[in-house]
Amino acid sequence: MKTVAILLLFAGTALAVPGRNSKCRPAARNTVLVMREDKIVDLTHELNENNTYWPTHPYPFEFTRKFSGYIGDKVFVNNNYFRQPEHYGTHMDSPNHFADGATPINKVSLMDHLIGPGYLINVKEKVERFGPDYLITIQDILKYERKNKARIRTGGIVFFYTGYGEKFYDSAAYLGTNKTGAEAVPFLHFPGLHPEAAKWLVSNRCIGTVGIDAVSIDVGPDAKYSSHIVLSNAGVIIIENVGHLDKLVASGRRFKVIALPPKITDGTGAPLRILAVMSGK
Amino acid sequence: MKTVAILLLFAGTALAVPGRNSKCRPAARNTVLVMREDKIVDLTHELNENNTYWPTHPYPFEFTRKFSGYIGDKVFVNNNYFRQPEHYGTHMDSPNHFADGATPINKVSLMDHLIGPGYLINVKEKVERFGPDYLITIQDILKYERKNKARIRTGGIVFFYTGYGEKFYDSAAYLGTNKTGAEAVPFLHFPGLHPEAAKWLVSNRCIGTVGIDAVSIDVGPDAKYSSHIVLSNAGVIIIENVGHLDKLVASGRRFKVIALPPKITDGTGAPLRILAVMSGK
Repeated sequence: MKTVAILLLFAGTALAVPGRNSKCRPAARNTVLVMREDKIVDLTHELNENNTYWPTHPYPFEFTRKFSGYIGDKVFVNNNYFRQPEHYGTHMDSPNHFADGATPINKVSLMDHLIGPGYLINVKEKVERFGPDYLITIQDILKYERKNKARIRTGGIVFFYTGYGEKFYDSAAYLGTNKTGAEAVPFLHFPGLHPEAAKWLVSNRCIGTVGIDAVSIDVGPDAKYSSHIVLSNAGVIIIENVGHLDKLVASGRRFKVIALPPKITDGTGAPLRILAVMSGK
Repeated sequence: MKTVAILLLFAGTALAVPGRNSKCRPAARNTVLVMREDKIVDLTHELNENNTYWPTHPYPFEFTRKFSGYIGDKVFVNNNYFRQPEHYGTHMDSPNHFADGATPINKVSLMDHLIGPGYLINVKEKVERFGPDYLITIQDILKYERKNKARIRTGGIVFFYTGYGEKFYDSAAYLGTNKTGAEAVPFLHFPGLHPEAAKWLVSNRCIGTVGIDAVSIDVGPDAKYSSHIVLSNAGVIIIENVGHLDKLVASGRRFKVIALPPKITDGTGAPLRILAVMSGK
């Protein structure tokens, strides 16, 4: 009886979630992307100092102009430096962001996590109905699968459309508060993925990556980063501040994804470029 | 006679090079990438403080550790900030780097410049025979086309393999000098693209992008950035410090390219991720 009780106790913790490597079969080894200008949706927000960002970051993306003008024999040159938090703009969290010793951004597998079938789960109406702290549920995912007659495949890249992407340049609306710094954290309000849904996706769908059009995969009031911890411990990649999901919603087409981050040695995240490539009619 | 003389005079200047938009037909609108783990060559060097970089940059890529450890209720968090020059590591130059008012990195066309057929021109033996300041010629390109029975297509992404990529972490060997700062510039030695070959590629092959496994598309001693100016004024993208071209040489296969930079507003360049996707068996 004592053993059973301990098992039940641990079943509720993040670390008890099985990693995809232990249970999941490898993702499909073959992804065909038919790239056409009219069939690519760029899911990347522009990266600049006006992006809304996590309130405890000390500064946003910042340019320092090195030089812009003519040098010597009529040679025009223009170039800059920049500094930024890793977790800024449309960006990726690698598993080492919330799991000690886990995969850094430079080692994330292209075929298991960055290139693969895409899924778009639209919860905008739910967020409007239930308020900004809406937690995306297992039922929302199952409803998507039923409606689309599609089962999320191993290595799938699952996007959640909350409608928050349209507020990205309005910091108070996007974060739920106009406070800044650590003082803002108790006042954060935006939708996120329920940690039970995160566990379910890891255990039952062996996903590669999740993306959301909000500042975090965790709902505003969750100061324990519950879904981050589930996903990171399972080796799943998280993409936050995804842009332009409304264009994918409007198209209604199936799509594949390629998401390429810079290869920062031991990075825990970075801004990246994400393309959705829509399949033919 | 006077008119003819003026035309001849201008024919030698960079600004007289016709842009690809004025002469070139659009690139193919359809690129099929068959992505498989064993057929992808990642042409990206890892991004860190040990990358060799242009000597007048005041600092390399630098991490600032924000936090790494446990917070509150056993939550592990690990994250960093970074700063860097735009033109650092395996990176892209957008046309506005050397052409006033030209396309910034966030506006570079995916289908015209970043996704398309790849070509690999191997000049390693020439560099070994003629020395580090070897200028890649029109003849080198024509020889490649003859040997491979392939004509470089509109929107083509042309890589030059000089063998310098293997020296990337040995600054003195890669740059030709162990001096640093402005003092190093007169002592730079590495191969590059002859500006006449750059003009020829722009005018006769309507290329989208050129890449090289050296620190600059211009040869070490060219302090006038001649090929940069030709290419930038024609709207052609330049990728420098390309990595792992030796793996593509070894494969000998045809390949396509996808090169995705972050979408920095009005950026003149940035580190990016480049994949070569090999066709065939």
